[in-house]
Amino acid sequence: MSFTAYILDVLTDSVYPARITIEDGIFKKIVPITITEETKIDFEGLMLPGFIDSHIHIESSMITPAQFAKIAVRHGTTSVVADPHEIANVMGIEGIEFMIENAKTVPFNFYFSAPSCVPATSFETSGAILNSAEIEYLLQKDEIVALGEMMNFPGVINGDEEVLRKLALSRKYKKPIDGHAPLLSGDDLDKYIGQYIVTDHECSSFQEAIEKKQKGMKIMVRDGSSAKNMEALFDFSQRIDHLKNQKSFGIIPTEVLSRRIHSPIFDFIVSDDKHPNDLIHGHLNKSVKKASDLGVDIIKAIEMVTINPASHYSLDAGSIVTGAKADFIIVDNLFDLNVMKTYIGGECVFDGENVLFDVEDVVCSDSMNVDLKNPEDFDVFYDGDECEVNVIKCFNGELLTKKNIATLKTKDGVVQPNIYEDILKISVVERYGGNSMANAFIKGFGLKKGAIASSVAHDSHNIIAVGYSSDMMARAVNTVIENGGGIAVVSEDFESSLALPIAGLMSNEDAFEVAKELDVLHRMASALGCKLDSPFMTMAFMALLVIPSIKISDKGLFDGDSFEFMDVIRN
Amino acid sequence: MSFTAYILDVLTDSVYPARITIEDGIFKKIVPITITEETKIDFEGLMLPGFIDSHIHIESSMITPAQFAKIAVRHGTTSVVADPHEIANVMGIEGIEFMIENAKTVPFNFYFSAPSCVPATSFETSGAILNSAEIEYLLQKDEIVALGEMMNFPGVINGDEEVLRKLALSRKYKKPIDGHAPLLSGDDLDKYIGQYIVTDHECSSFQEAIEKKQKGMKIMVRDGSSAKNMEALFDFSQRIDHLKNQKSFGIIPTEVLSRRIHSPIFDFIVSDDKHPNDLIHGHLNKSVKKASDLGVDIIKAIEMVTINPASHYSLDAGSIVTGAKADFIIVDNLFDLNVMKTYIGGECVFDGENVLFDVEDVVCSDSMNVDLKNPEDFDVFYDGDECEVNVIKCFNGELLTKKNIATLKTKDGVVQPNIYEDILKISVVERYGGNSMANAFIKGFGLKKGAIASSVAHDSHNIIAVGYSSDMMARAVNTVIENGGGIAVVSEDFESSLALPIAGLMSNEDAFEVAKELDVLHRMASALGCKLDSPFMTMAFMALLVIPSIKISDKGLFDGDSFEFMDVIRN
Repeated sequence: MSFTAYILDVLTDSVYPARITIEDGIFKKIVPITITEETKIDFEGLMLPGFIDSHIHIESSMITPAQFAKIAVRHGTTSVVADPHEIANVMGIEGIEFMIENAKTVPFNFYFSAPSCVPATSFETSGAILNSAEIEYLLQKDEIVALGEMMNFPGVINGDEEVLRKLALSRKYKKPIDGHAPLLSGDDLDKYIGQYIVTDHECSSFQEAIEKKQKGMKIMVRDGSSAKNMEALFDFSQRIDHLKNQKSFGIIPTEVLSRRIHSPIFDFIVSDDKHPNDLIHGHLNKSVKKASDLGVDIIKAIEMVTINPASHYSLDAGSIVTGAKADFIIVDNLFDLNVMKTYIGGECVFDGENVLFDVEDVVCSDSMNVDLKNPEDFDVFYDGDECEVNVIKCFNGELLTKKNIATLKTKDGVVQPNIYEDILKISVVERYGGNSMANAFIKGFGLKKGAIASSVAHDSHNIIAVGYSSDMMARAVNTVIENGGGIAVVSEDFESSLALPIAGLMSNEDAFEVAKELDVLHRMASALGCKLDSPFMTMAFMALLVIPSIKISDKGLFDGDSFEFMDVIRN
Repeated sequence: MSFTAYILDVLTDSVYPARITIEDGIFKKIVPITITEETKIDFEGLMLPGFIDSHIHIESSMITPAQFAKIAVRHGTTSVVADPHEIANVMGIEGIEFMIENAKTVPFNFYFSAPSCVPATSFETSGAILNSAEIEYLLQKDEIVALGEMMNFPGVINGDEEVLRKLALSRKYKKPIDGHAPLLSGDDLDKYIGQYIVTDHECSSFQEAIEKKQKGMKIMVRDGSSAKNMEALFDFSQRIDHLKNQKSFGIIPTEVLSRRIHSPIFDFIVSDDKHPNDLIHGHLNKSVKKASDLGVDIIKAIEMVTINPASHYSLDAGSIVTGAKADFIIVDNLFDLNVMKTYIGGECVFDGENVLFDVEDVVCSDSMNVDLKNPEDFDVFYDGDECEVNVIKCFNGELLTKKNIATLKTKDGVVQPNIYEDILKISVVERYGGNSMANAFIKGFGLKKGAIASSVAHDSHNIIAVGYSSDMMARAVNTVIENGGGIAVVSEDFESSLALPIAGLMSNEDAFEVAKELDVLHRMASALGCKLDSPFMTMAFMALLVIPSIKISDKGLFDGDSFEFMDVIRN
């Protein structure tokens, strides 16, 4: 294959026309050409390296790696560094190896990190534990290019032996360590970085990012479905202040300062997660354009999803050079950044209309190791007329919760929710064969009837349900179990579900189909009175114990401030 | 140790005031401070990371690593990646280990590369051969951070097995491979880079550097004693043309282009070699200032000798961050860049006037394994009145030579030089126990009497001599032998020499002393009529066979174009 095109060269920040020859899937020859009147440029637009998402949990897209590839190539993505943290919590090594094997069935570059924190806490039942022996097994694989985000920063700071062992193994195998340290700063941050944890994707303010960057971390600017940090991190008024303040104008020549304002000082743009309904509309192509709209030099923004991550993780990707794998995309221009074609290994995988490879359905062992539930399993009992209970107060679009207290009436010894005060039931049903479950109360969902349930519940992914009646809770949870995992919305009038039979996290359907089904579920939840924009996402994070102030696991209601269990009934 | 200072942060391209605490030689704490009227800044000026010379042959400074450290810290250099290629040609592994051990006697960061091409060619006698087994031995050492410059690019391109083995070993031990490929381009360059050779310091034109950079190499911009490529590579009119041409203005927004003009697209600034008389006046501090004078953003220029090389070679250096080794310098300001203080591992090693550590003399086994010579050893015989001879024509300051032909008279069967035509005698005397030597003729030195000799003669470092009479040639060579190596200038009227007893390449004296003695020798050579600015350097390169067109080794006169020996006498 041989053709002419204008190449955007991320190594010299420039554009040049060249004749490109591809053989055996690699760039065999790239010869700059001189444009004359006779020159025919085969590809209109501009040839760019394929985009790299250097931090993403594919499971959050609710589709298999192969299906992920199929939608991602439409947006110009050709490589990802995926952290299979979610499936690892459900299925351990088997789940990670499922991801790796499934990834190999499609023409796309999947690199993986070894999930460092499985389970997330000892206060919940997960499907697997990855100790340092398993981490060593994973780090030896060629497909594993890093140790996944080290969320256990208290463990790092306090010198937890098993944590330090995992970090030391990463150094032994010369694989970089990804970080995850929201709001960590000062001495604690120093200690964390001192363990060679070199990236962070959790910065939510410019000041936080600057401190981490100044201390030597590479900063991943996140533009995902859950978290969006671009506006904060690409805030140029802060950038200018940062350059101006502390008298630096007196030390750095002014003209030097003015030149660097549009040059981002951070390193990568990543998604972290992309829900199916976002993913069908765009991926890094949208993020890069958004960065440019925010004032970032467009070529520097492109480098944040090409050469920068490729260099960091030593990937055969990220630039158009002889000898490299022939991954590239054609975009219309640097203003609109519409992806016209995507090539991987020299093969066209997206022609502007269709994706040119097929995805096979996969079978994954059933991860719903739990008996069907009875309505009374969801009851909270109290011997008296009414009682005072601790309530989780959740907020639209937020992972943080607050502790509320409410007085609830009982009926036949069962504590009743209060629909007028929007105090509903919430339960977590363990699905790993241990039959534990916990019931409590939550405020903020607004459901007037029915119930919703999901086997996507961070990080252990037990089944979580919110609803008014124990009947409906049981029906919703049982629908999820019968589907082998997934999301269900039930009421007296209607019922619908999205089956996620792969680890209870992913579907075999493609992104468009999953997005459509999810959309139906969202509309049904609204019809039941739900006031949240993303009720399933919000519900999924009610089990994420590490985010304060009050959460729930299969073992009970949890105080995220004191990091211990708390009683549901206060009396 | 705890103090306040303004830090130049090469990670965020900015300056900020901070309180810095150093413990056990590392940055323990770096806390940004707010400047008020009461704030006392302990260090006037600006705190920078220590400079890193990522490609240098210390032997060219004619002093030991320890003495090199002593002069380099005056100029703000705290780390070097040194290629002990010269001593390896003389003494092999023993020489490299001598360098490593000597380096450890001073507070300075010496990193080494494993010399990849010893001997340089098979057409000369060297003191050692480093095959792939020795390279593997070296690559396993912590002190060795890279495979040294791969000068044998024909070997790479033609797939020489031993060369490929050395390259494969570097990948096995995950140590980067340095390149050396002057003027290599097109398909051959592709093949060379295809072997993971990732740097080049030989670019002498902007176009050459752009091609190599576009193909994925990191470019070392050289500012040494022998080669100076800054003007060519930092030529901003070419940079602008490069950005403007090939219609890229139509594709890249104009304001994006205008912003990047002052941002260098190359990676490191290196010296390659620094002769003692240059080194006493400055090192990378001068180069960075020169880059700035040429229009390079001063902070970007500083990054080319700090964070960029540190990242590439994975050095614990290059930025001022918690947990890093506390190497730093204080400069007066970013315009003048005068080095006021230098700290290594938290210890002040240069206080603005004095270097605060001592250097011990070292003893190295005598490398002059050669008998004293007789005058007749330097004769060229011909049975006839006159003969036509091939003559090396050399040029001031250049490594390239041209082939000349001259007719010389004989006397008692010995071919006579011709002082009026500036045709002198040149000889190379092997010093590794084999007793071979070669005599020929050279034009360009201008000596009217006497002779000069040196045991610094690239790359095998046999003894090379240029002079008018065989008597003087013998005296000069014998002086070098008796000194255990070095440089000598002799005539009927006077005689002087610089002893370089360490491998025939280095002195135990400090840089100031060696520079002074060298200066005497230069003035004496001038007094003998020499027209060259650096006669000893020019002479040293007359034995470097790989540079065309005509050179000489201990085995004979050499045709660098056809790469074979040639006769001295053409009759």
